[in-house]
Amino acid sequence: MYKDASIAEVAQAMQRSAIAFKSFSQLSRAARANLMRSIAKEIEALGEELIQTTMRETHLPEARLKGERARTLFQLNSYADACEKGDWLEARITTAIPDRVPPRPDIRKMLVPMGPVVVFGSSNFPYAYSTAGGDTASALAAGCTVVVKAHPAHPETSELVAGAILKALHSLGLPEDIFIHLHGASHAVGEALVKNEHAKAVGFTGSYSGGMALFNWANQRKEPIPVFAEMGSVNPVFLFNEKLSTDTDGIAKMYADSITLGVGQFCTNPGIIVGLEGGALQSFVQSLGEKMAGIQVGSMLHTGITEAYQQKSAAALAQPEIQNISNTAAPQPILAAVSAKAFLSNPMLHQEVFGPFSLVVSCSDIVEMQAVADALEGQLTCTVMATEAEIRSHAELLQTIQGKCGRIIFNGVPTGVEVCHAMQHGGPFPSSTDARYGSVGPDAIKRFARPLAFQNFPDALLPDELKEANPLQVNRTTE
Amino acid sequence: MYKDASIAEVAQAMQRSAIAFKSFSQLSRAARANLMRSIAKEIEALGEELIQTTMRETHLPEARLKGERARTLFQLNSYADACEKGDWLEARITTAIPDRVPPRPDIRKMLVPMGPVVVFGSSNFPYAYSTAGGDTASALAAGCTVVVKAHPAHPETSELVAGAILKALHSLGLPEDIFIHLHGASHAVGEALVKNEHAKAVGFTGSYSGGMALFNWANQRKEPIPVFAEMGSVNPVFLFNEKLSTDTDGIAKMYADSITLGVGQFCTNPGIIVGLEGGALQSFVQSLGEKMAGIQVGSMLHTGITEAYQQKSAAALAQPEIQNISNTAAPQPILAAVSAKAFLSNPMLHQEVFGPFSLVVSCSDIVEMQAVADALEGQLTCTVMATEAEIRSHAELLQTIQGKCGRIIFNGVPTGVEVCHAMQHGGPFPSSTDARYGSVGPDAIKRFARPLAFQNFPDALLPDELKEANPLQVNRTTE
Repeated sequence: MYKDASIAEVAQAMQRSAIAFKSFSQLSRAARANLMRSIAKEIEALGEELIQTTMRETHLPEARLKGERARTLFQLNSYADACEKGDWLEARITTAIPDRVPPRPDIRKMLVPMGPVVVFGSSNFPYAYSTAGGDTASALAAGCTVVVKAHPAHPETSELVAGAILKALHSLGLPEDIFIHLHGASHAVGEALVKNEHAKAVGFTGSYSGGMALFNWANQRKEPIPVFAEMGSVNPVFLFNEKLSTDTDGIAKMYADSITLGVGQFCTNPGIIVGLEGGALQSFVQSLGEKMAGIQVGSMLHTGITEAYQQKSAAALAQPEIQNISNTAAPQPILAAVSAKAFLSNPMLHQEVFGPFSLVVSCSDIVEMQAVADALEGQLTCTVMATEAEIRSHAELLQTIQGKCGRIIFNGVPTGVEVCHAMQHGGPFPSSTDARYGSVGPDAIKRFARPLAFQNFPDALLPDELKEANPLQVNRTTE
Repeated sequence: MYKDASIAEVAQAMQRSAIAFKSFSQLSRAARANLMRSIAKEIEALGEELIQTTMRETHLPEARLKGERARTLFQLNSYADACEKGDWLEARITTAIPDRVPPRPDIRKMLVPMGPVVVFGSSNFPYAYSTAGGDTASALAAGCTVVVKAHPAHPETSELVAGAILKALHSLGLPEDIFIHLHGASHAVGEALVKNEHAKAVGFTGSYSGGMALFNWANQRKEPIPVFAEMGSVNPVFLFNEKLSTDTDGIAKMYADSITLGVGQFCTNPGIIVGLEGGALQSFVQSLGEKMAGIQVGSMLHTGITEAYQQKSAAALAQPEIQNISNTAAPQPILAAVSAKAFLSNPMLHQEVFGPFSLVVSCSDIVEMQAVADALEGQLTCTVMATEAEIRSHAELLQTIQGKCGRIIFNGVPTGVEVCHAMQHGGPFPSSTDARYGSVGPDAIKRFARPLAFQNFPDALLPDELKEANPLQVNRTTE
């Protein structure tokens, strides 16, 4: 068991982080990238001990954890590459025009790090969105120091990873306060972190209530700070019948796998499936229900999540006009169905049931499907299962769906978030608190940086990235 | 006199704007740019009537208004160019790798418009940050519809400009609800606009109290939305004695002009001048005080601003240990002085006195100057007047100053905000509510856009910007 940090310890940690920021923010991007790659190596070197510890703490199977570890190392290494390349700096140069009246000054702008970043470990990604996960990697790449609050569901995993980061810092002779690791099962620790004057931004992946608590604390500060909370969503899937008819069972299999992947504990889990009444939808739903009922899922991450899944799925199934298609109950996967009419009149059904649960909403026609799309809140993803002809004939619906999400998928599943530069993982509220940013892919670095313009600076005093000779060969635009 | 919009009229306006957004957001960037250029032409065609009306409403002199009109047209035209070029779209392509296990999907991302934007006209820029000012131009370029609340200090000017926009929309056969113009002297109109469910972002230039009211309303919504409030700052100037000695009178003249420019009614007005005790500073302060006392300023924008200048400058001059160097009183320009010690112990002196007022803070040594820099809040700009040798020997101070502002100027004045792509006009809180964005230059467009990723989309269904053949020749990065 690990003791919660005291309020005084939180204050000390933030102060140390602010002091370390002064030197860390001056390190070259190459040195930052080097640190990130060293962290990846040290995590890898933890080997079996890390995997076994996390299996014990999270009930996640070995294969999944090995995959997630690989993803985490890839994040550290690929964001390190992006950090070093520097495209995210948005370097812009406006050259002087001395003979204009009035003269145009020389102005050069680039992104600079914001300051200490507070990262909250998530429960469902013990590696990829926890101690050395995507938020930490983004913040370090941006040049920010990091204070992590470990998720209380996997404190030993978090300690091991924090130890690996410390080892990397030591081996490179860097100040250990660049990364500070705290425990805090109590909300008081999170509140003290977010409200501390030295904190300049917050990264979080988790529940709506958790994310909104951080968001509200951050906005109650004398100096409000940005909170990047990725709070999940129901990731609606829109089905069209011609497409369904081409491969009913294949699509059902694909969705049964997606809904139950990781015991449904992904923020991109397809929780709502919107279809058009008819034989094709009926066959699909029957097939999907059978497949889901036949899938043996493992244990959920911790008892809190299991209990919430039981309560929320039971509450959903108790709503008027709901059918239990799979004829199962939590903790097993559940497929339920409801008419669009009942769905539209019951906002409770629009909420996420975190776990291997999906609700089919059947619409009598495209007008009703449009009404369902209009009624949806902001989402991380939306998916369209359609032939090209089907989607072409519903341009308004496609436009509505695009307006509701951060990523739109054509004939696929929302689970499986590729770590790449074109990824957007984040979407309109309430799926995240800031739709202008995402938490996956190297653009996530930009969450922790802000533009700074230098006017009429002597070349020697400019950051290397903005010097006339461009010694670091950064991609920049000049006018 | 113009009547305030009723709460029902606000709701109707936002609803109409949301409907217009559906079609406007689908227009090509070329068509949007065309609209912006037409608006510029129609404003120009208002000719003398516009200038005379604004002179009457704002007391600003003809030359200044003609300059500001030119700047406003330049903003519309240059953001139109940027809109059309599309670099701000941040188009990214991750190509598919079908034979990887699991296969890598094709993902393509670009920025898309967020929805209706509410723009609050400012009092100090009746053209450049009002009805068709930088916020409106940025929002239109992003593909957002705009609802403007006219500033009550220049309603006729605002009506004329709104008429020009309407004329441009008519001449191009575009729906007039793309731009909606309302009046509202009462705060209730602003509150209803910001809290309306259809509003997706807010642009504002004005006071701290005004900006924070909008910011808090926006965060109290069920769906919080971003507020880009540029709330001004004291724009500290750091003086070094060797530099001062080289041209005491010249620098004093430059600063007397900057402090009194536009009767001190610029958000980049240098309100605090931090120097090191000694003969060079003494001579400079004396010269600056004399020059300021000799400058005849015009009337301020409206009686509310004049009264606030009188009250705030009198309150500052009534603080312990303050000297009135210029020996003047509001509404004349005022130069005051105080020791760093007194300044550091009196946060009231850190606040902006909006008008031609500046406070010299004299430090006994560089340690005290560093303490002053540490104590400052976030600023739009900071300026350093120094020889290269002087600034090189104070690296820590330079780093602190960079951490406090959005733009740092070397041997110049902060007034005069160039409209160019390397400009950053915005800074750490409280100078603005979101240091990650600025309100001048084409990067301001990005405030009103968010990333949307398309996964495995058929080429024909992608936006033209992301199609494989790149028919619009957008600058994009591919991996």
